[in-house]
Amino acid sequence: MKIGNQSIKFENTPSIISTGSIVGPKEKSGPISSYFDKTIDDVYFGEGTFEKAEKMFLETAINTSLTKSNLNITEIDFAFAGDLLNQCISSGYAFRDFDIPYFGLYGACSTFAEALILSSILVDSNQASRTVCAASSHFCSAEKQFRMPLLQGTQTPPTGQWTVTGAGAAILENSQKKDLPKVTFATPGKIIDMGITDVANMGAAMMPAAFDTLVAHFEDTKRQPDYYDVILTGDLGKLGSEILVEQLKQKGYDISKVHKDAGLLIYDSKAQGTHMGGSGCGAIASVFSSYIYSKLLDKEINKVLIVATGALMSPISLGQGESIPGIAHAVSIENM
Amino acid sequence: MKIGNQSIKFENTPSIISTGSIVGPKEKSGPISSYFDKTIDDVYFGEGTFEKAEKMFLETAINTSLTKSNLNITEIDFAFAGDLLNQCISSGYAFRDFDIPYFGLYGACSTFAEALILSSILVDSNQASRTVCAASSHFCSAEKQFRMPLLQGTQTPPTGQWTVTGAGAAILENSQKKDLPKVTFATPGKIIDMGITDVANMGAAMMPAAFDTLVAHFEDTKRQPDYYDVILTGDLGKLGSEILVEQLKQKGYDISKVHKDAGLLIYDSKAQGTHMGGSGCGAIASVFSSYIYSKLLDKEINKVLIVATGALMSPISLGQGESIPGIAHAVSIENM
Repeated sequence: MKIGNQSIKFENTPSIISTGSIVGPKEKSGPISSYFDKTIDDVYFGEGTFEKAEKMFLETAINTSLTKSNLNITEIDFAFAGDLLNQCISSGYAFRDFDIPYFGLYGACSTFAEALILSSILVDSNQASRTVCAASSHFCSAEKQFRMPLLQGTQTPPTGQWTVTGAGAAILENSQKKDLPKVTFATPGKIIDMGITDVANMGAAMMPAAFDTLVAHFEDTKRQPDYYDVILTGDLGKLGSEILVEQLKQKGYDISKVHKDAGLLIYDSKAQGTHMGGSGCGAIASVFSSYIYSKLLDKEINKVLIVATGALMSPISLGQGESIPGIAHAVSIENM
Repeated sequence: MKIGNQSIKFENTPSIISTGSIVGPKEKSGPISSYFDKTIDDVYFGEGTFEKAEKMFLETAINTSLTKSNLNITEIDFAFAGDLLNQCISSGYAFRDFDIPYFGLYGACSTFAEALILSSILVDSNQASRTVCAASSHFCSAEKQFRMPLLQGTQTPPTGQWTVTGAGAAILENSQKKDLPKVTFATPGKIIDMGITDVANMGAAMMPAAFDTLVAHFEDTKRQPDYYDVILTGDLGKLGSEILVEQLKQKGYDISKVHKDAGLLIYDSKAQGTHMGGSGCGAIASVFSSYIYSKLLDKEINKVLIVATGALMSPISLGQGESIPGIAHAVSIENM
C-alpha cells in the first residue's frame, strides 16, 4: 500500500530467509571479514578477465544464499539483479546459468535496494512465493571502465573511494516464519542532481539523493531516526556521510547515533588506504548480506533502514559536460 | 497471482490510459509514420551529442503521454525506464527532470516490456495508482557504442538490423475505465543463450528467448496463438521472425497468422536499406505506443501479446569470447 508521497507499506511483510556474501582479498583484510560467507584471494577468481571474475562473485553469492536455505534455484520464482558494468554483463551472464525469469536492473550502487523493493512488492502482493535479489561490483572491472586503466597506477585523490570487490544475494519469501527479518516499508527514490561533476567525490555527489529519500521516508512513515537501530547507507563514504548527517540535523532529523555506511564498515580506511571508504553495488550488497543480516538474526539489532545510493552518470555523460545525478532507495527491515 | 511456471495473472487488470511516441527522420519516412505523435527531422534534436539527443527523445515521449492524458508528472507515483546506453544515461538524465521515484531497468531491447510488467505489478496490487513506463534508442548513439564509429561508414552485413531512433512511453492506472486496453497477463522471461556470437545477427541470437517465453506463456495461460489478434515481437527482424515462426510451428504453436515484428513494421526494409529490419529499445516502445495502441483504442484489434526481446551482451563480453544471451518478456494487453 502506498503511504505518504513516495513510500510503500508491505502488509504481508516478506521474510528475508537467507543471504549469501562473498568478497575479495582486500575486503578479507578488513574489519568485518569474519562475517562474509566466502572470501576469495584471487581477484581473477580463476577466470581470464576481471569481468568474468565479477560474474563468478555474483554467481557464488547467489549459490551460497540457495545452499544456506536448502533451496534449489527452480524453487525461486523471479530474480532481480544488476551491477555497474556496461550492459550489466555480470548479472546477465550470471543468470544465464540459472533457469528462472530475470528482471535486469540498473540503479548503479543503489541496485541492491532497488532489487529488494521490487522483490518485496512481488512477494507482498503474492505474485511470487520466493525471489532472489543480487548485486555485485569489482574494483578492477570498475576502475577500468569508469576511471583509469589499473596498470597506469593513477593516484586517487583524498576524496576518492575504493570499489568493493564482492557480491551479495538475499532470498525473500512470503512466509510468516517468526525469527526472520521482514521487509516492512520501502521508499523508492527520485533522481537528484546538485551539479557535482567530480567523479573522485562520489559520496558528495550522491549525498543529496540520500538526504531526499531519508526525509521522504521519515515524513511518509512518521518515524524518527531513533526508531532504527541502524540506518545503513551504501557508499557515501566518510565525506558524504558527514555531510548527510549534518544536513539532516539542520532539517530536524538527527541520525548521528544510528548511522553507518557500508563503505566505511568494510575497510579500515586509514590502514588500507581506501581514502573515503568503499563504494560500488557490492558494498551494501555484501555488507547487508553478512554483517547486518547476521546481527538481525542474532537480535543484536532489530530495526534497520537500508539506504543505497547510486550515481547515474557514465564516463561519456561526464565527458559531455554533464553533472552526476544521484538516486537513493530506502528499505526498512525489521524483526517483528 | 502467479500462474503456471512463470506467468502472472493481473486480477485488477491495469489500464493503459495514454501513450506517447516520437521517432527520427528515417522512421518518419517509414510505412507507419502517420501513427507517431511526433517526428523529428534532426537526429541531434537540437543538442550537441547523440546521447543528449536520445535523452530528448525519451523526455518528449514521456511529456507527450502526460499531455495526452491531461496529467502532471506529480500525479504519477513511480517511473520505470531504461535504454541501451552504458549506465542507461538516456533514462537517468531524462528522469532527473521529472520529480518522481524512479526504477532504472536494464533489459536491453526487452526493457519496455519489463517496464510494463513491473508497472502492472505495482498498479495491480494497489501499491501505485499510476505509473509511467518508457524506453528509447538512437541509431547514432547505439552504432557508436556497440559497433563502429558512424564516420567510418562500415557496411552492414545482410543479417544486420537498423537501430530505431525513437522512444515510447505508456501510463498505467488502476482505474477500471471501460474502453481502455488492460494488462491481463505477463510472462517474464529467462535468459537463453544458444551460443550465437554474431553481433550482426541479433534477431537469430534473441529468437530462442522469444521461443522460450512464448511457449511458457501458452502453457501457463492455456491460450493458443490464435487467441491473439496480434503477437508483436520487438526486434527479431526478418530472419529472427522466420526462425521463430518455424520453430514454434514444430512445437505445435502456429503464430504465422498473427505474428508481427515492430522492427519490420517501422521500416520498408527494402526501400530504406534496413536489411533485416529495425531494432533497439525504441522499436517496440515507439511502435506499441503509436500503431498498436491506436488500433487497440479503435477496437480494430482487441487482444495483443507483446514479446520484447533483448540481447544482454556488451562489446566487452563479446571481445572476451562470450556468446549473446537473450531474454524476452511477454505482456498480454486486451480490450475487455
